[in-house]
Amino acid sequence: MGLSSADEYAERLKRMKPNIYVNGRQIGRDDPLLAKSINTLRVTFDAAQDPRFKDLVVTTSPLINEPINRFTNLHYRQEDLTKKLEKVRTLCHQVGGCIQRCMATDTLNALAVVSKDIDDAKGTDYHQRFLEFAKYYQKNDLVGSASMTDVKGDRSKRPHEQADPDLYVRVVKKGKDGITVRGAKAHITMSPYVDEQLVIPTRALTKEEADWAVAFAIPADADGLKIITRIADSRPRAELKAPYNRYGVSEALLVFDDVFVPWERVFMCGECEFGGPLALTFANFHRHSYCGCKPAVSDIIMGAAAMAADYNGVGNASHIRDDITEITVIAELAYAAGIASSAQATRTSSGIYAPNALYSNCGRYITGVNVYHEFEILTAIMGGWPSTMPYEQDWFSPETRHYLEKYAMRNPKISADKQHRLFRFLSDYTTSAGAAWSLHAGVHGGGSPVMERIGIRSDYDLESKKALVKYLAGIED
Amino acid sequence: MGLSSADEYAERLKRMKPNIYVNGRQIGRDDPLLAKSINTLRVTFDAAQDPRFKDLVVTTSPLINEPINRFTNLHYRQEDLTKKLEKVRTLCHQVGGCIQRCMATDTLNALAVVSKDIDDAKGTDYHQRFLEFAKYYQKNDLVGSASMTDVKGDRSKRPHEQADPDLYVRVVKKGKDGITVRGAKAHITMSPYVDEQLVIPTRALTKEEADWAVAFAIPADADGLKIITRIADSRPRAELKAPYNRYGVSEALLVFDDVFVPWERVFMCGECEFGGPLALTFANFHRHSYCGCKPAVSDIIMGAAAMAADYNGVGNASHIRDDITEITVIAELAYAAGIASSAQATRTSSGIYAPNALYSNCGRYITGVNVYHEFEILTAIMGGWPSTMPYEQDWFSPETRHYLEKYAMRNPKISADKQHRLFRFLSDYTTSAGAAWSLHAGVHGGGSPVMERIGIRSDYDLESKKALVKYLAGIED
Amino acid sequence: MGLSSADEYAERLKRMKPNIYVNGRQIGRDDPLLAKSINTLRVTFDAAQDPRFKDLVVTTSPLINEPINRFTNLHYRQEDLTKKLEKVRTLCHQVGGCIQRCMATDTLNALAVVSKDIDDAKGTDYHQRFLEFAKYYQKNDLVGSASMTDVKGDRSKRPHEQADPDLYVRVVKKGKDGITVRGAKAHITMSPYVDEQLVIPTRALTKEEADWAVAFAIPADADGLKIITRIADSRPRAELKAPYNRYGVSEALLVFDDVFVPWERVFMCGECEFGGPLALTFANFHRHSYCGCKPAVSDIIMGAAAMAADYNGVGNASHIRDDITEITVIAELAYAAGIASSAQATRTSSGIYAPNALYSNCGRYITGVNVYHEFEILTAIMGGWPSTMPYEQDWFSPETRHYLEKYAMRNPKISADKQHRLFRFLSDYTTSAGAAWSLHAGVHGGGSPVMERIGIRSDYDLESKKALVKYLAGIED
Amino acid sequence: MGLSSADEYAERLKRMKPNIYVNGRQIGRDDPLLAKSINTLRVTFDAAQDPRFKDLVVTTSPLINEPINRFTNLHYRQEDLTKKLEKVRTLCHQVGGCIQRCMATDTLNALAVVSKDIDDAKGTDYHQRFLEFAKYYQKNDLVGSASMTDVKGDRSKRPHEQADPDLYVRVVKKGKDGITVRGAKAHITMSPYVDEQLVIPTRALTKEEADWAVAFAIPADADGLKIITRIADSRPRAELKAPYNRYGVSEALLVFDDVFVPWERVFMCGECEFGGPLALTFANFHRHSYCGCKPAVSDIIMGAAAMAADYNGVGNASHIRDDITEITVIAELAYAAGIASSAQATRTSSGIYAPNALYSNCGRYITGVNVYHEFEILTAIMGGWPSTMPYEQDWFSPETRHYLEKYAMRNPKISADKQHRLFRFLSDYTTSAGAAWSLHAGVHGGGSPVMERIGIRSDYDLESKKALVKYLAGIED
Repeated sequence: MGLSSADEYAERLKRMKPNIYVNGRQIGRDDPLLAKSINTLRVTFDAAQDPRFKDLVVTTSPLINEPINRFTNLHYRQEDLTKKLEKVRTLCHQVGGCIQRCMATDTLNALAVVSKDIDDAKGTDYHQRFLEFAKYYQKNDLVGSASMTDVKGDRSKRPHEQADPDLYVRVVKKGKDGITVRGAKAHITMSPYVDEQLVIPTRALTKEEADWAVAFAIPADADGLKIITRIADSRPRAELKAPYNRYGVSEALLVFDDVFVPWERVFMCGECEFGGPLALTFANFHRHSYCGCKPAVSDIIMGAAAMAADYNGVGNASHIRDDITEITVIAELAYAAGIASSAQATRTSSGIYAPNALYSNCGRYITGVNVYHEFEILTAIMGGWPSTMPYEQDWFSPETRHYLEKYAMRNPKISADKQHRLFRFLSDYTTSAGAAWSLHAGVHGGGSPVMERIGIRSDYDLESKKALVKYLAGIED
Repeated sequence: MGLSSADEYAERLKRMKPNIYVNGRQIGRDDPLLAKSINTLRVTFDAAQDPRFKDLVVTTSPLINEPINRFTNLHYRQEDLTKKLEKVRTLCHQVGGCIQRCMATDTLNALAVVSKDIDDAKGTDYHQRFLEFAKYYQKNDLVGSASMTDVKGDRSKRPHEQADPDLYVRVVKKGKDGITVRGAKAHITMSPYVDEQLVIPTRALTKEEADWAVAFAIPADADGLKIITRIADSRPRAELKAPYNRYGVSEALLVFDDVFVPWERVFMCGECEFGGPLALTFANFHRHSYCGCKPAVSDIIMGAAAMAADYNGVGNASHIRDDITEITVIAELAYAAGIASSAQATRTSSGIYAPNALYSNCGRYITGVNVYHEFEILTAIMGGWPSTMPYEQDWFSPETRHYLEKYAMRNPKISADKQHRLFRFLSDYTTSAGAAWSLHAGVHGGGSPVMERIGIRSDYDLESKKALVKYLAGIED
Repeated sequence: MGLSSADEYAERLKRMKPNIYVNGRQIGRDDPLLAKSINTLRVTFDAAQDPRFKDLVVTTSPLINEPINRFTNLHYRQEDLTKKLEKVRTLCHQVGGCIQRCMATDTLNALAVVSKDIDDAKGTDYHQRFLEFAKYYQKNDLVGSASMTDVKGDRSKRPHEQADPDLYVRVVKKGKDGITVRGAKAHITMSPYVDEQLVIPTRALTKEEADWAVAFAIPADADGLKIITRIADSRPRAELKAPYNRYGVSEALLVFDDVFVPWERVFMCGECEFGGPLALTFANFHRHSYCGCKPAVSDIIMGAAAMAADYNGVGNASHIRDDITEITVIAELAYAAGIASSAQATRTSSGIYAPNALYSNCGRYITGVNVYHEFEILTAIMGGWPSTMPYEQDWFSPETRHYLEKYAMRNPKISADKQHRLFRFLSDYTTSAGAAWSLHAGVHGGGSPVMERIGIRSDYDLESKKALVKYLAGIED
Repeated sequence: MGLSSADEYAERLKRMKPNIYVNGRQIGRDDPLLAKSINTLRVTFDAAQDPRFKDLVVTTSPLINEPINRFTNLHYRQEDLTKKLEKVRTLCHQVGGCIQRCMATDTLNALAVVSKDIDDAKGTDYHQRFLEFAKYYQKNDLVGSASMTDVKGDRSKRPHEQADPDLYVRVVKKGKDGITVRGAKAHITMSPYVDEQLVIPTRALTKEEADWAVAFAIPADADGLKIITRIADSRPRAELKAPYNRYGVSEALLVFDDVFVPWERVFMCGECEFGGPLALTFANFHRHSYCGCKPAVSDIIMGAAAMAADYNGVGNASHIRDDITEITVIAELAYAAGIASSAQATRTSSGIYAPNALYSNCGRYITGVNVYHEFEILTAIMGGWPSTMPYEQDWFSPETRHYLEKYAMRNPKISADKQHRLFRFLSDYTTSAGAAWSLHAGVHGGGSPVMERIGIRSDYDLESKKALVKYLAGIED
């Protein structure tokens, strides 16, 4: 059956060869440094067993005719898209932010769509290879990364123009059994704790760039793979335990130091004209996911602002209600764009439904240009205490505890402990490295706003709008 | 058959008793002053015959089992909602702005839904009365107003607290055959050229306010009805004819000077607890329509900006492309909200589908808070010429024509005539009374942004967002 | 003495040769069409006699040692700059908008500064010529235009690259007694009712463009000058007279059909490297003036919003107070930038103080990017009535007057007449052609925001900010 | 002489009694935890000896007729205000953010002004007492805190209505030699490393609140004072040293557990009507300082964005230049407001010049509502690398160094080390606890935007704007 337990997932990680580097040390995947990140992924497995989430998380795969976790699902049914949105929003709530695992869902769907398009155009057999891999992935309820973003070197130059050709991941050797790849992918969320690295190109490629047109899947501990990791966990808590502080996320520079990939795991190799379509198809699926996850982030900001206002006794002030409603509008317009994108999805040659890209881009865009503003609203409402309140241990030290409990009081009906818990959460949520990660991911994850603007206008029929104005103005061409 | 021609509509107007007042004069409905406004409505009839629009505009009514114009349709099928959006966006393009007639569509649907709800609660028979009226309305392809907004007097007081009880429309007499109403409705678009005034309350009412809880339909020339009119036409053109300049809109203060309404045309009378629901249900249907019409306005602004940029030779400048994309995002997020609102519509007791109010409110909201910004972008791109270019007749006077043609030239490949036509259009579109009407209607029509903010938060489950933060922070109640 | 009366000014205009064209007709300067525009200028003369304004408007010229009107003043004293700001803000209040006459003040000061710089560099004698002209201008209390903006043709090409060389004003002949110029200037505010057209280049010029490097003054009715005019008056009032409706403004396309200019009125001729400095120096003085006039516009919008809120009974609502404060901030930051620009002015070689350009640009910029937003706030607060209220004559017609007076009532303590006056003003102020003129001039007058952005960064020491970051980051070059 | 060295300052701290609490421990002022914070203050002493800054930092006190550090200066000369702005902007550059010490400068000036006002009104002798203290402070070149913000308890209640009267600092006993105070002040920047805590009330007080109307100075290690501290340092660096990482800031909850204050150090005691004026006078001086320090923060953000754009090879992209210019505008409008506020300062009864409060509020406001936006611009330009780049030690580990150096390359002319230094700085500057402190302080420090809005409108003559509209509209009262 295509459903693993969280423990099975953790066990798989533990068995991997060590290729993780953190701050000058090499660590195993059972190192405590990775525990919070792995906790986040655990939620996606636990949810499949949890009566509250089961119906949302488990579906049946038409590919293997077995129950699977939706995170491994290919969207052969249009309603899969709306369900994905709902699932993502719900599970992000559980971990207080990014649930991470949809990275792979979106990569898999993009590979499924584009491998078929390549086959249609070129007579290759990538799609069948990919479907075999997908069955294996579903049956084993695997976790994958979306290893897309190359390090890019000089941004004003194309891949083949770089001083160092390795600044975009490329094929350095093709053999009978497989290919050898070299390069590095940056900002690869989850890559230290996935089963499989799913690798796709980052941009459109010209005909000189066949070597850079490569997509594949490779076990996370394959020889030659080095995962140089940075962790953006929630703050640790000594005494005041809270669910938010259980979870984390890690990013990595994923180095391919001549990694061998067998042909059955290669899904594009040299078809440079499909580099752009694969990148864009992934972007479309992933921006569609953002229409579910970013509203979840807004839900937390909204709730945090509303709680702070309540605890501060100003929950009914009209400017505060308006500011909170502003966040609601951002969240719900993004989610509405996700729904519209699903409702107007297109069935591709592969049989998979691809979201409407105009709406997925618009939905992602509105979240990207507003995330700083949302945190600004929260900061304005919560006041300065989350960034100046004394450390946790002072609340538990006999010398200072009584002072803090006395002077932290606001509404006398709300206990000092609750005051502490709320403002400690607000502090962790807005001033930690994890907070910065949320802001930066909110801007850049899934493509920066500037990329969505390009995505929006690239296929937009602006000519028809000009024709409309010519008609109204009485201009005949 | 439920389809009239534009001429039949104009004929009906011509036969009405004169009760229109404009700038100190009483006029007939065939006065040239109303011609442009009526032209706008004509488009809705012509479209039903036009092969380009027919499929979008004509449907079959389940009520009378005949083809009808969608502007008279009750939305018994969920897809009616999406179709309405598409129809509205398309026809607004034809007239360069508000197509107007959906005012009545939305009022009819609201009356259908709420008259049934009243019957369900009170055992009355309003719904059947209303359906009889609706059949008559559909069969004759009528045009109605949405006479909702009361003059309201002192905004800090409720209807029954006003110094003058007539400041909200109210029942002053109930008799065997009908009721007599008194008061005035303000900002009533189209009321000088409709067949029927459709009247509904403007707000929630308390139990002291049964007299103000009244909804009905009344022929536009009924005794006691005075329509004091203001016209916001496009600018007249002497020589340089253009489609945009054919159309217009009129507003009126609609005075009810003791108007008699027979019972069969009364759809609410005294059920004060349904005043609010009727107002909100109309608002919901109408904000849903705005998710179609405001994107059409944005389409025109977008096209106008793109044309101006092209004629000015700066169409490829990145800041201009970004600014135009900004308008695209506003338009498409609003439209996406309309699609989402349709996709998540609710079937009401009447059998009619009501749009999801959260998304219809969010969609309307984003247009309302951006319309000034959209015109600002257009102004920035088009430059000062639309507000300083000499008058039309100077272009046709032998003394000045050669100067204007010589000095109006920009791109030498675009003729002086085209330059004139485009910038004359931009001038009319942005500097006329009609332009101001668009801006003000863009803010206030269908409810000002402040009303949508209230609409958005009134049913929003903010408590669940607080509960989410309590969970994350480890706060137990 | 350097002070005329308003009547003397009007008499001078009346005596001029007719060269004004309006909508296909040629008119004299005493035509009623120009009356409102001239009324605006009259205020600048009357103010010199008015005890309320005299001290602000009259000063003594170091050039002629006589009292003069500050509108003809050259800023030889640093405090002249602050006084100019205060004068402009105060007199704009009197006419409900642009007082217009500072156009010439700013052109004169720019000519004074740059003619000296040319002489310093080239050994020419433009400055002395200019000072003679300035004395004549001051003694006779003249009114001038700022004829700067060329029609520009293809914006992607330079003056000498245009298909038609006349698309920028240029010298077509140089003779013993003077020069002959050809071309046209667009958007020339006031040019139909000035004494003198003051002409300067619109941009930086290359060495191929000596013929376009020309600056001069010429009487407004000189042979070959054609003034094709567009009027943006306030709305006419039949009965309900109000100061706002007395004033207006006109723009023109100013055509130079081979106009002869004697050498003593030529202040630049061929010194192409000073084309840019002259354009920028004017821009600096004029943007400094905007730091005074735009706050005056904001004052009116602020007062209008506050009055509407009061009449609507919502003056204390916190979101309305916040929105009005938003306008205050825009106004006062622009004015503060004007003060700072004056406080950090530079004494030029001519002895004249030039404002600090960074602050004058920043001040103008913040008004330009906010004017639409200010009108949006006003629209939101005042509601829809200003764009739907019936025409003036209906308020005076016995058939409708009682209805309008009854139903216009808001706060019962404020008479119907006052309600009418306020909302009629709001209607005229926001929905007339004059309203559109204010919006467009608010964006483009004195240079569009995009020009100020360029102005701001062109001299800004961004390198020092980079050096600062290098220091902080420990980067050594 | 009124100038100490940084070492003398550190020595004074070292001699103090230990009353600092950090995360459950009591520490001395020589604990490494405070070193970075103290480094920041050191800069203010060193600058007085540094030829680059000396002229800006050292002045002569009219009070003691000796050279003093401007941080201890009372502004008896109007130019002191402009100098303060320049000094603050310059020294903030040196430490990469808040220079901190102006907190006390502003408190001292406010105490000087208001103590005189109290004496004028009440015949007390606070001013003389204060001047004696000020002489001592200047002679010894002391450092003070601005201990103003009370913990406030229930925000909907006044001080005397709180469940616990200690939630605002108050006098609990008055004796012959002095007073005893109890309560706590929150968010007290620098309080762990000052010589003197300078204490003033936080708000307007009613006549029931005489006990809360108390202002005084007290040595930082006085009996009963407990300083519960939180540190917001820049990130530590193991190898890659950089000036930015030398500095830090600490905040504290400053607890007064029945602290005795001798009369000669009490500057207000019971004069409740002066509680508001003292709070507002401090706010005015301090918001004036923000007009200098926040532009310094913007300078850093601007430089960081420009450097990132350069290193990324996109420094000439027009949207990036526009975004950077946006930051310039914010910075320079705030600074211009500071200059205007200085230019229009008022000489108070004490002889001290108080900045114009309208402009100081507007200047502070524009920074407060934009700081999140400025960081957003930086984030958008710098990309995701600062939040995902591996840890410092991986750059120095033989196993990973070559990978990082290879793949970090952008412009091949810029060395890997420089790339590392810049992006490490950007990472520290935007993702550390110190980064969050900057954002939060940017919003709340010196008063949140909502407080400035109140400050702006409280004295603003909105009535004159209404009168202006009445005049224009022809409304006579």
